[in-house]
Amino acid sequence: MSDMKLTVTKPTGLSQLSVPPRALFGPGPSNAHPRVLLALGMRQIGHLDPKFLEIMNENQALLRYTFQTENSITIPVSGCGSASMESTFANLVEPGDNLLILNAGYFALRMKDMAERYGGVVQTINKPWGSKFDLDEVKAAVEQYKPKILCAVHADTSTGARQPLEGFKELCEANDCLLLVDTVTSLGGVPLFVDQWGIDACYSGSQKCLSCPPGIAPLTMSDKAMDKVLARKTKVANWYLDLTAVKKYWGKERTYHHTAPINMNYALREALLLIAEEGLEERWARHQTTAKALWDGLKEIGLECYVDEEYRLPSLTAVTVPEGVNAKDVTKFVLAKYNIEIGNGLGELGGKIWRIGMMGFNSRLENVTLVIAALKDALEHCKADRSRDACPHLKK
Amino acid sequence: MSDMKLTVTKPTGLSQLSVPPRALFGPGPSNAHPRVLLALGMRQIGHLDPKFLEIMNENQALLRYTFQTENSITIPVSGCGSASMESTFANLVEPGDNLLILNAGYFALRMKDMAERYGGVVQTINKPWGSKFDLDEVKAAVEQYKPKILCAVHADTSTGARQPLEGFKELCEANDCLLLVDTVTSLGGVPLFVDQWGIDACYSGSQKCLSCPPGIAPLTMSDKAMDKVLARKTKVANWYLDLTAVKKYWGKERTYHHTAPINMNYALREALLLIAEEGLEERWARHQTTAKALWDGLKEIGLECYVDEEYRLPSLTAVTVPEGVNAKDVTKFVLAKYNIEIGNGLGELGGKIWRIGMMGFNSRLENVTLVIAALKDALEHCKADRSRDACPHLKK
Repeated sequence: MSDMKLTVTKPTGLSQLSVPPRALFGPGPSNAHPRVLLALGMRQIGHLDPKFLEIMNENQALLRYTFQTENSITIPVSGCGSASMESTFANLVEPGDNLLILNAGYFALRMKDMAERYGGVVQTINKPWGSKFDLDEVKAAVEQYKPKILCAVHADTSTGARQPLEGFKELCEANDCLLLVDTVTSLGGVPLFVDQWGIDACYSGSQKCLSCPPGIAPLTMSDKAMDKVLARKTKVANWYLDLTAVKKYWGKERTYHHTAPINMNYALREALLLIAEEGLEERWARHQTTAKALWDGLKEIGLECYVDEEYRLPSLTAVTVPEGVNAKDVTKFVLAKYNIEIGNGLGELGGKIWRIGMMGFNSRLENVTLVIAALKDALEHCKADRSRDACPHLKK
Repeated sequence: MSDMKLTVTKPTGLSQLSVPPRALFGPGPSNAHPRVLLALGMRQIGHLDPKFLEIMNENQALLRYTFQTENSITIPVSGCGSASMESTFANLVEPGDNLLILNAGYFALRMKDMAERYGGVVQTINKPWGSKFDLDEVKAAVEQYKPKILCAVHADTSTGARQPLEGFKELCEANDCLLLVDTVTSLGGVPLFVDQWGIDACYSGSQKCLSCPPGIAPLTMSDKAMDKVLARKTKVANWYLDLTAVKKYWGKERTYHHTAPINMNYALREALLLIAEEGLEERWARHQTTAKALWDGLKEIGLECYVDEEYRLPSLTAVTVPEGVNAKDVTKFVLAKYNIEIGNGLGELGGKIWRIGMMGFNSRLENVTLVIAALKDALEHCKADRSRDACPHLKK
């Protein structure tokens, strides 16, 4: 043994973990289904165990159903949603590649940042946050910029807007362009047809409509997209996410790459199995029904939705903060009094909207009743003319 | 709702997850402590919840104790061990940077691969797998190549060898060079003194001596290393792992970067708390005692350790496969008959060694008794002159 002495002492006063019973009605994470948490806590097996290889196959089959794709490369990335997003850009973008990004929210900017780190040359077309792009606007931009990759956010977590993708397939085919789509807040809750819409690269997160904790992230790539990856002149500028190596672990070869997050794979399997048991169409309909009840409830207490109903996401609703109300006081109040998390606005919508998610397991009418009641109470307490100090839930 | 029809049908025949009760005595993952699994399965809270920010602070304090460092940047990376490894190289290496890697195992080659993807210019000094480097050999190479970063594997998961690091601090200081160390198979099980040894960048995994499932990965960086990161001329070529942004989420600013893997952070906290409760020195001594019993037991059944005892890891023992025995038959046999996972050799040691890990919670004398009995049984059944078909555990 070493004869050196410890110089950093252990932290004191810590005991076994205990967490408050939050209802997660923000932009994600949503609450995991109880069966998912049970699966998550099961004892580990090895990442090359025959039983784990079986679970990997099952996760791929379940993901193909959820994405509605036959893509061979359909896998959970070993990280959070941003890791599957990074994997998409790291693999597809080579220095000098031209990308066109439809920019009407926070995550389009992240796309740009990531693409540029890999040497991509990015053009954006821009609209106010929370808007959607019409097909003819996109067509004009594609024909002008001739991108190798067209990037869209199907379900924008920062605004609650849905970008319709009908017609993009034909547009991309006519212009020899790959279609890359962010489905972080739609997968498993909002109609999504990867193959029929001609999406070539599609990433998502686990902690939104899948009702699985964050830490594993679905990704699918078409053969056309993989052809581009396999034809790269340079190595993927990221070892961990390099799909040319990762695919050999998820494919027939089973070549060791990195140790997969075993328990997160258990949890994802259970979450996806719950979707298959319910049926995708039934699940989409449930999200729509719950959202409609939420929108009605918001109207009843005098609140307005930020996004037009036509392209408003059922999974995530942006609510306009009324004149004279401090947005953060309301989120703080409902957390302190009701153990409810709702989201504040992000970026340029900070202070202007709240974000209310009714995702996956949480998409239930009783949750609508609860969040509307809590919001009503909060608004009465958080009017700007009230003293903050008078409210026990807003202190400190 | 969409009027499109599903084209990919759901997989059938799947039911709720069930996993075999494996004893994970390979190179990792090791079995998680039951308290860690309980914490993992707890209900989620949001990644910006005040309670979660508290857990983040606790994880940082507990990691500082476990690493024996005062480094401000001491965090769990949101991915597996290879993600914290990638984070280290992605942040520290700028195109043209000169690195020297001590190469005597599989993971030195991975270091080289990663460093080169970020534009690093790599020199290696090479020894047979399972060797260690003496200080004067390292000194000669550092003085010859004048690297900006010297890279060593403290505990090599592919060989079970321990690279002593005493004297590296003075060497690096004298040559104005950063010291980067892989501690994947040592953190929490083998004496490690990040500050006293002058380690500037150090990464590990959760699924070895910490007895936490894979999916979150400790990382620490000295101020000197962070100075290099903050002085970069180019953006970190990786958005997800960019420490200049990640540090603002883990630091006072609490700026949202990506959604942290909430439940993996719960699990890590419990795993690290168990280390603090036991005490680092007591835990290191336990690993040494268990390893000694394993080495004695191996000798008794006629097996030899591959690495000299002087620099043999207590956490992971490489065992030489005897003449006439098919290595994979033995691993297959103990898995099938005893639910025990031990590891095969990796890379050039494939077929030549087994890798037996007694890590973290698994480092207990009863596990030594079990694995030795199972190996003894396996050796009797797996002699090359026996028919494979006669053994029910080796069929298919």
